[in-house]
Amino acid sequence: MALVTMTTDFGLREHYVGAMKGSLLSVNPDVTIVDISHEVAAHDLLAGAFTLRCAYQYFPARTIHLVVVDPGVGSERRGLVMVTDEYYFVAPDNGVLSLVAEREDVRRVISIEAEHYFRQPVSATFHGRDIFAPVSGWLAKGIDPENFGPPLDDFVRLSLPPVQEREGGFQGHVLHIDKFGNGITSFSVEEVGAAVEKCGQPRFQVNGHTVTRLVSNYSEVEQADEVFALVGSSGFYELAAQKKSAAVLLGLRRGMKVDLQI
Amino acid sequence: MALVTMTTDFGLREHYVGAMKGSLLSVNPDVTIVDISHEVAAHDLLAGAFTLRCAYQYFPARTIHLVVVDPGVGSERRGLVMVTDEYYFVAPDNGVLSLVAEREDVRRVISIEAEHYFRQPVSATFHGRDIFAPVSGWLAKGIDPENFGPPLDDFVRLSLPPVQEREGGFQGHVLHIDKFGNGITSFSVEEVGAAVEKCGQPRFQVNGHTVTRLVSNYSEVEQADEVFALVGSSGFYELAAQKKSAAVLLGLRRGMKVDLQI
Amino acid sequence: MALVTMTTDFGLREHYVGAMKGSLLSVNPDVTIVDISHEVAAHDLLAGAFTLRCAYQYFPARTIHLVVVDPGVGSERRGLVMVTDEYYFVAPDNGVLSLVAEREDVRRVISIEAEHYFRQPVSATFHGRDIFAPVSGWLAKGIDPENFGPPLDDFVRLSLPPVQEREGGFQGHVLHIDKFGNGITSFSVEEVGAAVEKCGQPRFQVNGHTVTRLVSNYSEVEQADEVFALVGSSGFYELAAQKKSAAVLLGLRRGMKVDLQI
Repeated sequence: MALVTMTTDFGLREHYVGAMKGSLLSVNPDVTIVDISHEVAAHDLLAGAFTLRCAYQYFPARTIHLVVVDPGVGSERRGLVMVTDEYYFVAPDNGVLSLVAEREDVRRVISIEAEHYFRQPVSATFHGRDIFAPVSGWLAKGIDPENFGPPLDDFVRLSLPPVQEREGGFQGHVLHIDKFGNGITSFSVEEVGAAVEKCGQPRFQVNGHTVTRLVSNYSEVEQADEVFALVGSSGFYELAAQKKSAAVLLGLRRGMKVDLQI
Repeated sequence: MALVTMTTDFGLREHYVGAMKGSLLSVNPDVTIVDISHEVAAHDLLAGAFTLRCAYQYFPARTIHLVVVDPGVGSERRGLVMVTDEYYFVAPDNGVLSLVAEREDVRRVISIEAEHYFRQPVSATFHGRDIFAPVSGWLAKGIDPENFGPPLDDFVRLSLPPVQEREGGFQGHVLHIDKFGNGITSFSVEEVGAAVEKCGQPRFQVNGHTVTRLVSNYSEVEQADEVFALVGSSGFYELAAQKKSAAVLLGLRRGMKVDLQI
Repeated sequence: MALVTMTTDFGLREHYVGAMKGSLLSVNPDVTIVDISHEVAAHDLLAGAFTLRCAYQYFPARTIHLVVVDPGVGSERRGLVMVTDEYYFVAPDNGVLSLVAEREDVRRVISIEAEHYFRQPVSATFHGRDIFAPVSGWLAKGIDPENFGPPLDDFVRLSLPPVQEREGGFQGHVLHIDKFGNGITSFSVEEVGAAVEKCGQPRFQVNGHTVTRLVSNYSEVEQADEVFALVGSSGFYELAAQKKSAAVLLGLRRGMKVDLQI
């Protein structure tokens, strides 16, 4: 059984996700579909890219990741099949795969053009159902990606505000605020972990607040209103509080600047 | 593997959907269950009918569509198995299948009465778990629908406010507002598309606003606050804006009258 | 195919549930995963226990119920595999299995300690992905629970406020308010049903309101604003109104005291 994950901004109240799954299963009923999330904020390519980046690598090799956050649907933007060492990705060419492309060895990128793999007629507003889902179904049947169209090199990459090294530290931003109110920063362990460990006493400054306590898990701190920092499960430093929302306590919003002083 | 879709108003926070799936899989563990939506507004038969109508036809032939929006649970209202050319539908007899019945050749409708197919004891408030889910499981095992009870002809049909032809155009209403704020009207391409195309310059009037621009996809318009019309993916004309909510821009609500001037 | 259900507080907007499913399927791709709910209120052990208690028993024998509401993740709290007559449960040892343990014959409880069954490296903040999901995958492969660690007897049990018998009746509380606004009380049919039936005229008092009408289903009452009592589908008396929210009509909140006068 082939495995296809889905990440979209269609929401769970609407019929869109159901229609996509029907379309995929009509091409290939032997697929197991697993939802990553359908509650990506509407049209938010960065949020979609982040959601995917935190989940795709836990799936078995050869999983097909179908990603549809697609504000440019129906325009000239292309559709992609991206092949990495372990996975396939099917998505619009709008940067939603940028965070994967940064981390993976990209073997091949194909522009989806072969219309006989599409559901007909193709709606100008729902390529998820009529193009990306059926192409994922055919891919899961073992169709080689090159059958879907010509290779391309210049796929769209989102330019994330990078973590910048500065005198005495780094500057980054709030990448995501999760359901629990944890403020996930753009400081990854890969990038700043060695410096943080070496200094031992990092200071995170955000929205006029300073967070100096670095712990290893949420339960280490008993003071409910104290915000602390820790390495989250996706490898980013995050600001959190014990059973409380750090985002509420500090007034965090996605995109806010965070200073990390070492 | 048989395929069963689910459309309900039980919501994803509650245990109800899980209990229904357990009950179905207890009868027939060889079923693949696909959610269409469980976030239909509580007791809203028309919303349930609309959700189903926009998704059912994308599934493979022989799919069983299990639909439970059931404000009359426990009363004398009957339960149905409806058989069309390609699909089976299992639902309470309250009109939630009306939009399917309008579009499909209905071959047989059965009143669900054979209690030995039910989960016992049957709760007076949860036929989804105790009747409709197990009946779907048996149906997926190949039990012929006539085993569930006698045929019936007089199943309930919701009377939707129809699109009315008038001097110089049509009158309809806002059928649904989706997550993106698109206002989906009751004007279907089947019904008014030829007239719209012939005239070339349609005017949609709703809530004191007039929309005159007709485009083929969301990206065609660059002005973010301009509301335009296009043919949506389910075949209805919809009012939309580029990465903005047309519903907010125009103050749309479901059920509002829409005039289409040709 | 083994069946694994999931009940968590991770929410459907985040990537956490997707990452857990990937981790589980990486250990054992032959598992069918069924969601019970991921919208348990954050860190709310009692809400998690209630959700599980209303759904687990409808699944086929040998189902594995994976439950992650885990405010103490990363601390010294243990992880459990609990074996009952019919099911396996995998969860943190924090009381989230209490309502199951009350109702089922608990055959064995194992402390999860064998690290070679974990996903490595183990995040201090996401044992759902790195411990509980893979252990569920191995369990579904037929690994005997004793391989995961030593038996234990003293697992954590939540002390729910019990229903108390009093002169002329019982005192309980509002256990849950569901999506429809039904107020589910802690009075179970098992505990108080015989007394209610014998008296014939029970009076529920809550938040200054008195409810005296006892019906068998939601449709029996035509007055839309009248709140009535009935036996809900999980065996608890609930306060409800016809197509309206009893919780809004009576100002109910979870945890409020309810008097039942017989």
